[in-house]
Amino acid sequence: MEEHAKVAILLDFYGQLLTPRQYQILDLYYNSDYTLGEIASQLNISRQGVYDGVKKGKNTLKEFEDKLGHVKRFLKHEQALKKILSDLRRVKCAGKVRDGEIIDSCIEELEKVINDL
Amino acid sequence: MEEHAKVAILLDFYGQLLTPRQYQILDLYYNSDYTLGEIASQLNISRQGVYDGVKKGKNTLKEFEDKLGHVKRFLKHEQALKKILSDLRRVKCAGKVRDGEIIDSCIEELEKVINDL
Repeated sequence: MEEHAKVAILLDFYGQLLTPRQYQILDLYYNSDYTLGEIASQLNISRQGVYDGVKKGKNTLKEFEDKLGHVKRFLKHEQALKKILSDLRRVKCAGKVRDGEIIDSCIEELEKVINDL
Repeated sequence: MEEHAKVAILLDFYGQLLTPRQYQILDLYYNSDYTLGEIASQLNISRQGVYDGVKKGKNTLKEFEDKLGHVKRFLKHEQALKKILSDLRRVKCAGKVRDGEIIDSCIEELEKVINDL
């Protein structure tokens, strides 16, 4: 996954643990796609201040993820659940529900996801 | 859910954000079911010190959950996924896979879970 999108997810997961100011800077940068200059002008601080704020906030978010790993777990589950969903849709699209093997593998996969939550 | 079990889950989710000492006290209390007196004796601190540590650590964990809500989301997803699993097992137990309505509702439910992750 691309760095920008990765930090946006980290911000979604752990943003509330940042200071309101840190959150504001990162939100403008990662969610609203403002440039450093635009944020500086909007918040009336220096461009360097914004740069430092983004860097520090991003590192703080990464530290939370290193300690907790909730995003890693989320992405793993999302991938598994999308696979199950697409398998079940395949059964559905077949017109009638008859593919027992797919259902079996969906059940197995779901058991893994749940045990692993 | 019972308070003790609830804090044990919070500890599992956010324990790594506590200080090592706080984590140790809460781990002994909530996961190993030591009494306050046993923890005091093991860590060579006063019973009151343990009591305060448990109380403070528990409050810190609750503050993390108030801010992030990851446990609430986890429990909601766990419940939904177990429902899907049990529905799929019902189809499987029917001997052959033929209940299209159940598959449809599993797909719908899974879509909700994934959109909501």
